[in-house]
Amino acid sequence: MFDKRIKDLREELLDEKLDGVLVSSVSNISYLSGYSNFSKEEREAYIFIGKNFSYIITDGRYSEAIKKEVPHLTLFERGNGKSTEELFKKHKKEIKALGIEEDNLTVEEHKIIKKNFKNLKHFNLSRSIKTKDEIKKIEAACQLGDKAFHHVLGYIKHGITEKELAFEIEYFIKKHGGELSFPTIVAFGKNSSVPHHHTGNDVLGPESSSGRQGQFILVDMGVKVEDYCSDMTRTVFFGEPSDKQKKMYEVVLEAQKKAVRFIESCLKSGKQVKAAEVDKAAREYILSKGFPSIPHSLGHGVGLEIHENPHLSPKSKDILKMGMVFSIEPGIYIEGFGSPRFTGEAGGVRIEDLFVIEKKGLRQLTKSTKLFSV
Amino acid sequence: MFDKRIKDLREELLDEKLDGVLVSSVSNISYLSGYSNFSKEEREAYIFIGKNFSYIITDGRYSEAIKKEVPHLTLFERGNGKSTEELFKKHKKEIKALGIEEDNLTVEEHKIIKKNFKNLKHFNLSRSIKTKDEIKKIEAACQLGDKAFHHVLGYIKHGITEKELAFEIEYFIKKHGGELSFPTIVAFGKNSSVPHHHTGNDVLGPESSSGRQGQFILVDMGVKVEDYCSDMTRTVFFGEPSDKQKKMYEVVLEAQKKAVRFIESCLKSGKQVKAAEVDKAAREYILSKGFPSIPHSLGHGVGLEIHENPHLSPKSKDILKMGMVFSIEPGIYIEGFGSPRFTGEAGGVRIEDLFVIEKKGLRQLTKSTKLFSV
Repeated sequence: MFDKRIKDLREELLDEKLDGVLVSSVSNISYLSGYSNFSKEEREAYIFIGKNFSYIITDGRYSEAIKKEVPHLTLFERGNGKSTEELFKKHKKEIKALGIEEDNLTVEEHKIIKKNFKNLKHFNLSRSIKTKDEIKKIEAACQLGDKAFHHVLGYIKHGITEKELAFEIEYFIKKHGGELSFPTIVAFGKNSSVPHHHTGNDVLGPESSSGRQGQFILVDMGVKVEDYCSDMTRTVFFGEPSDKQKKMYEVVLEAQKKAVRFIESCLKSGKQVKAAEVDKAAREYILSKGFPSIPHSLGHGVGLEIHENPHLSPKSKDILKMGMVFSIEPGIYIEGFGSPRFTGEAGGVRIEDLFVIEKKGLRQLTKSTKLFSV
Repeated sequence: MFDKRIKDLREELLDEKLDGVLVSSVSNISYLSGYSNFSKEEREAYIFIGKNFSYIITDGRYSEAIKKEVPHLTLFERGNGKSTEELFKKHKKEIKALGIEEDNLTVEEHKIIKKNFKNLKHFNLSRSIKTKDEIKKIEAACQLGDKAFHHVLGYIKHGITEKELAFEIEYFIKKHGGELSFPTIVAFGKNSSVPHHHTGNDVLGPESSSGRQGQFILVDMGVKVEDYCSDMTRTVFFGEPSDKQKKMYEVVLEAQKKAVRFIESCLKSGKQVKAAEVDKAAREYILSKGFPSIPHSLGHGVGLEIHENPHLSPKSKDILKMGMVFSIEPGIYIEGFGSPRFTGEAGGVRIEDLFVIEKKGLRQLTKSTKLFSV
């Protein structure tokens, strides 16, 4: 599998008139090597491919693992007097044009590379079209996420905190062999009006200032199985939702359906599925109902990264194609404006599911209940 | 506190003859804003400081949180037709020289910035000297880590897996209000010979191939309290360690002491504490005992990031000063070479503690037992 990916990459290099490529992003390194244990916060490795060589460059902390797990690439161990630049120097003559990941490589690294290779060009290793094997892994992550969400519904009770609820989800995922694709977001009450709330110590309960309305519970969670991510958001109400809350929920749910139906109709009629138009279908529906525009894009690709191509946003130029896996996640967020008069109104609803385009059409991968209130 | 940090930053800019700075790294954004919820994997924010303005640039997902939690910076909300580049254009005349983080900014971002500001210079916001308040937070993280390690010693039993042991540590930390500074590393047996082992499903038990020797258990764990990290590694033996294992342990422990004593003697005599020489004191001792050189640096600064300045490594030019917090973590790793004859020998020992330099001298912040076998 990895040999094939390297072979495909070499063909892409030919097409792009490049003699080699320096791969630096952890997800692309993982995609080409199968080894996913490098830090995303520090530069711990590169993959350096030319016509006649394919190196994985890392340091002594990883070399034993790489020798065992990545036999299809040549290990270049930097450190102890051996620098990456030496390897660049060794191959500078045979590489006239080198591909680099301009959206990942730092300015500092670029300076060193430029000293050795004059002709540098952005190179994008597209992973947006998934193989069946990749889709299976994403599906497994979605299924474990569904189980975790179902499990945690039983924990939604007076007195539980956001952190405790998030912890129950994460505990369940890890206990069943999964990892997290990101720290679980749990937002109660007005916290749900912050699309990326930092899960805290707020308590669910009747003491809330929510008065005669349900309390918002927004859960955004992702599982990782064999390095592949899932992503799902659900919003439920603790207690009877007010009319306004019901309306918000219904509009968000309908917005998601509008996007789904738009994709399905394009697929049926053989039209290109333009990601920007999918975004528009959901966004304009929400606006037409008098709610504010979604303060984020409608969706994003998911795979080795929790956010990757394609992008479903107003300015996207992506076309949604067979084999692509992406989220559709409309949301409405009403701020409290800090005024007591508005406190009761603050809150947000987001509903997010993962989808894949297959021969038979659009298929939903996350299947958790969209129940309304608990 | 944050106002003072911005004020100090403006003074640094004057010293460096810069008219402004674009801060992009999440840890520096957190340091200047107090807001630590941005992703490290995607660019979600910048701080843009000039003589007469101080912006935090982010999108609608974060704007409500920023308005509440970061009143000392002006929010520039990008998206919905407003781009960061517009803000650059607005201020391009007053900024002749702009500081950027070359070790963080990508080539792609650099291209856009260069269009607007001709004179770009690397700027390094040093956080290596900590205030008392910062040290207290790191100490709190260390203390919670010590409690978690003490707690988990009771779980070291036949049949437990690496993942289960790691999970018990993480559960304890989260239950007590902490977060993780990195995913806990637990390595049993020969896995401990991989300095950055990926915690897996290996089982602790008498069935191991270790024969007449103890089984290595290496635990590398970090806690985060109020955004500040701790870092600690312990190695213990499950069962009676062999003579060779004992020797490895004693040499690593003594190497750590050599480094500590070297720092203490410099501090007493008023000599500069050169980080490279501290590394050398431990490294050469290990070599002198016939073991391989440490395949990583001896230590690193710890703060908002788990790895930050100063660096204790052979090529470091850093000087260890009052207020700096850093790890000292020598290790010996013996590979199994894949041969059955060597299997019994494969394993690693690392001992890591955090230290701070204060008026009274060097103080150890992590205090977990260095017991030998369980």
